[in-house]
Formats: sequence, C-alpha cells, structure tokens
Amino acid sequence: MSFTVNAEISQFNGKLFKLSHDSETTHTKMDVNVFLPSGPSEKIPVLLYLSGLTCTPNNASEKSFFQYFANKFGFAIIFPDTSPRGAGIEGEDDSWDFGTGAAFYVDSTQEPWSKNYNMYSYVHKELLDKLAAYYPQLDIKDNISITGHSMGGYGALAGFFKNPGRYKSVSAFAPISNPSNCKWGEKCFGNYLGEDKESWYQYDPTHLIKSYKGPTPDILIHQGAQDGFYTKDEQLQPENFVAAAKESGYAGKVDLHVVDGYDHSYFFISSFAEDHAKFHAKYLGL
Amino acid sequence: MSFTVNAEISQFNGKLFKLSHDSETTHTKMDVNVFLPSGPSEKIPVLLYLSGLTCTPNNASEKSFFQYFANKFGFAIIFPDTSPRGAGIEGEDDSWDFGTGAAFYVDSTQEPWSKNYNMYSYVHKELLDKLAAYYPQLDIKDNISITGHSMGGYGALAGFFKNPGRYKSVSAFAPISNPSNCKWGEKCFGNYLGEDKESWYQYDPTHLIKSYKGPTPDILIHQGAQDGFYTKDEQLQPENFVAAAKESGYAGKVDLHVVDGYDHSYFFISSFAEDHAKFHAKYLGL
Repeated sequence: MSFTVNAEISQFNGKLFKLSHDSETTHTKMDVNVFLPSGPSEKIPVLLYLSGLTCTPNNASEKSFFQYFANKFGFAIIFPDTSPRGAGIEGEDDSWDFGTGAAFYVDSTQEPWSKNYNMYSYVHKELLDKLAAYYPQLDIKDNISITGHSMGGYGALAGFFKNPGRYKSVSAFAPISNPSNCKWGEKCFGNYLGEDKESWYQYDPTHLIKSYKGPTPDILIHQGAQDGFYTKDEQLQPENFVAAAKESGYAGKVDLHVVDGYDHSYFFISSFAEDHAKFHAKYLGL
Repeated sequence: MSFTVNAEISQFNGKLFKLSHDSETTHTKMDVNVFLPSGPSEKIPVLLYLSGLTCTPNNASEKSFFQYFANKFGFAIIFPDTSPRGAGIEGEDDSWDFGTGAAFYVDSTQEPWSKNYNMYSYVHKELLDKLAAYYPQLDIKDNISITGHSMGGYGALAGFFKNPGRYKSVSAFAPISNPSNCKWGEKCFGNYLGEDKESWYQYDPTHLIKSYKGPTPDILIHQGAQDGFYTKDEQLQPENFVAAAKESGYAGKVDLHVVDGYDHSYFFISSFAEDHAKFHAKYLGL
C-alpha cells in the first residue's frame, strides 16, 4: 500500500485517518490526515486545507472543527504537513519560521534545500495523485477546492492561481498575501528560491492574480483585526492582494472580511470554518 | 480584582477568557477558562465542564467544540483546572493518573494532600462563588448545569448527586462511573481519602445515586465503544451506574449511548458536544 494508516479515528460521524507515506518529491516520510465524511460512497468532493508555519497535519485536525461542517455538507478534507521533516539538512530546525514546519509551499531551487523542500509539487501533484489512487471514492481529480491559514492561506491562493481550473474555489484565513513584500516571505523565498525576485513573484498571490487567466470564482478571505502579524508585523497585507485584484479579472470578486476582535489562532479559524465550508460547498456542488 | 485576565480571545462570536486567581481552598494559584456567549447580557445560563486526567482548562477550550454550541444556544461555559499545580508536595508530579492533573474532584483528608487537594470544595463552592461575583451577568447561582469527561464525567455526576437541586442537569462523556471499583479510583481515593471505603462511596456516583433524594432530570452519557479504558481496562463501567440507577429514583432516566467506533479522545467529545449542549440547553430554559 502506498499509505500506512497510523490511526483511524471516528469524529462527527465521519472518519479521520492519520496516514504516512514515502515521498519521491521530498525524499522523506510524509504525514497527512484525511477526513472522510459519512454518507456518499463515491464522487466525494474534497477540500484541501494547507496549514500555517510550525503546524503538522494534526493542529487543524484537532482545532479547526472543519470536520463538523465537512460531514454536514458531505466533503472530504485533506490536511497535508507543512514541510519535509528529518531531511537532515544543517540548520533546518533552527527557526520556527524557516526550514522544518515552514517549507512555504514552493519548489526550492537553492542548495541545500532543493532536494527535499519541494512542497509545491508534493502537495499539488504527488500527494493528490497518490490519494486519488488510494481513495477512489474521492473526486480529487475533478471536484476539489482549496483553503489554508497564514502560510497555508498564501499556499492556497498561489496553488489556485498557478493551476487554472484545477481548484473549484479558493479561500484563506489570514493569508500571507504578498510574501515578496514581508519578512516571512523574504526569508523563505530568499533561501529556497534565491535572490532573483522574479522567481518569488511566481508564487506571490499579489503578483499571480494580475496575470491570471482562468475561471474566476469569488475568493473568500477572513482576517482578524487584532492579529498582531497583521496589525504590527505587516506579514499578511491582504489589502495589497485586494488592490491587485482590482487591476485584474478579479475586480470586485475578492471578499475580504477584517473581523473585529479576532487574532491569528485556531480560535479564529474555527470561528469562520463554517463560513468557508459553506462557501466551498457551493462551488463543489453540495 | 479577584481574577487576573491572562487572555481574552474571540471565538464563535463570543469571548473566551483565560483567568487565574489565588485559591483559599487549594492554597495555590488556579487557572480557569470562561466562555461568554454573544447575545444576552444578563441572567446568562452556565455549563460547568469538568476535564479529565492530565488536562488543564485549555484542552477542552481548544478541542471540545462546546463553545460553538454554547454561543448558538446562549449559555456560558466554565472550564476549571483538574488539580492544584505547584503545591510543592513530594511525588505530586510522578504519575499522570495521580497528583498534579488528577485531583479527582474530592476534598482530601489524608496527608500530605489535605491542605491543597480539595478540588470538590474548590470547584463547587469557591470557584463558582467567585465567578458569580466577578461575572454578575452569569446566572451561576440559579441556572447552571454540569458535564465532564472521564475523571470529569465522574466529577460531574458526583457533584450533581452531592448537591441536590444545585445543577439543573448533568451529563457525562465516558465517565469513571464506579471509581471505588477501578484502578484509577482506587489509587486516587486510597491516597486522598484513606483506606476506609465508606469515605470513597461519598463520591462514587454508582453509590450516590442509590440514596439520592432530589430532582431527577434525565442523565445523558456517551461512551465510545472502542475506548480502551472502557473495553480493556474496565476503568469506566457505565453499566454499573445504569444498574444502580435501576434500583433508585433514577430508574429509566439514565440515557447511556455506547457509540460504535469512538475512542476516549477529544475527537469523541467534540462529536457529541452538540447532543450534550442541546440536552443542557433544554434544562437551562434555552
């Protein structure tokens, strides 16, 4: 079998599977959690949830409560990891915002990262292909949407724009919306992709949206107004993305909610999981 | 102020407060989390949630999903800690199922525990009295129900029977239903209360129900059929409680659901939080 089942856990009348497998893209063992709803046994729509810095597949599985709504609407959820782990690269564990837990959903071009830190191809190609074969009841090839939080929110937007028509819809929680222009992005892009900023723009949603040609479903974004990464550190900058959308085919179709009182935590994510689940359910035909 | 506010977190349109205060009952600093729903600003009904072995106020706050339903129905939730911490008693940190994180909701009578390990009086008296004064909008004195998980499920049932009429309703997730008769209970009762088993029965729901005289709202219990503490270790024994109920005024009023596929984790709790929230909402007049 391509996947090892490490745990099978009942939740909300569905099942959460904790899987692992050997990846040819990262050359490491990778963990992934998959939630299967009760109900339909074929052509189950899928939501791909990309997590933020430091997270494993477990954080969102335990704290986002997306599964409650997934079971209600009848879609599956895939929770990938955020980086290779144990690649053995010197310094990979030194920072919380770079290396392990922070692969930034790119295909690295720079040494010593390029052999393992290829989370873009891992997530959008290898993982989905393997899961489509492993779970034939999931409609991964034809009916999948994407969301994510912070680094994962950026990853979801980038993945949507770089694969026109692949994802039925995209949403994000407090996404790093303009990574070429903030410290997190500069650190990760600089090390994984090198100093040529043109290579950064190939992953930056605020750049990608301008030249995007493809289907234009609405985009839903929530941002906590009291999120310190937003208010103080300027890591998130959703307004830059909205401004870029206005100059593109997406004018008027990015629905940004800056919500008063909310921070950057899973308490924030869980609070708006219902809105995002409803949003994607519509595009997934549920 | 009697409480220090360590964090104020928005969730599900309500607010989660992480508080701490000095307790005269445990002679330690105690943490407690309180969720306030949006909506009514006075006479807010309350659910007291008692956690299981090893837990702090944060585990259920992060993983139970109760706040979603609390905000929907309009009740507050109080999440106390499970023991004093830092009492400085030799050996208090040696076991996961005794001492710190495992005070078993009793008033200890034995040295060296009796000065600090008084979680029965702490939870049902000091904490509720202090929170009633601190949050006058909460109807703690007149409209409160109680639930809990595992050790906290036992604590909820014991607290209900030992305080007739105090709690409008009681429910439990995988409660330690007959603690005088299982290893967890024998270890904790033996050390906190001494070897006289009569003193144990004063906290054991399976004994308390037999002599209980008071209001008899239905009791809701969920138990995972694949919970190893239930199937293998015989720590939980809800059937003993149901059998005792049949010999009491509670005959026919204990609603035990042994649910196939579920374990002992927060995935199990979150899956049935909705049922328990609905159950208590009815008794709380919501």
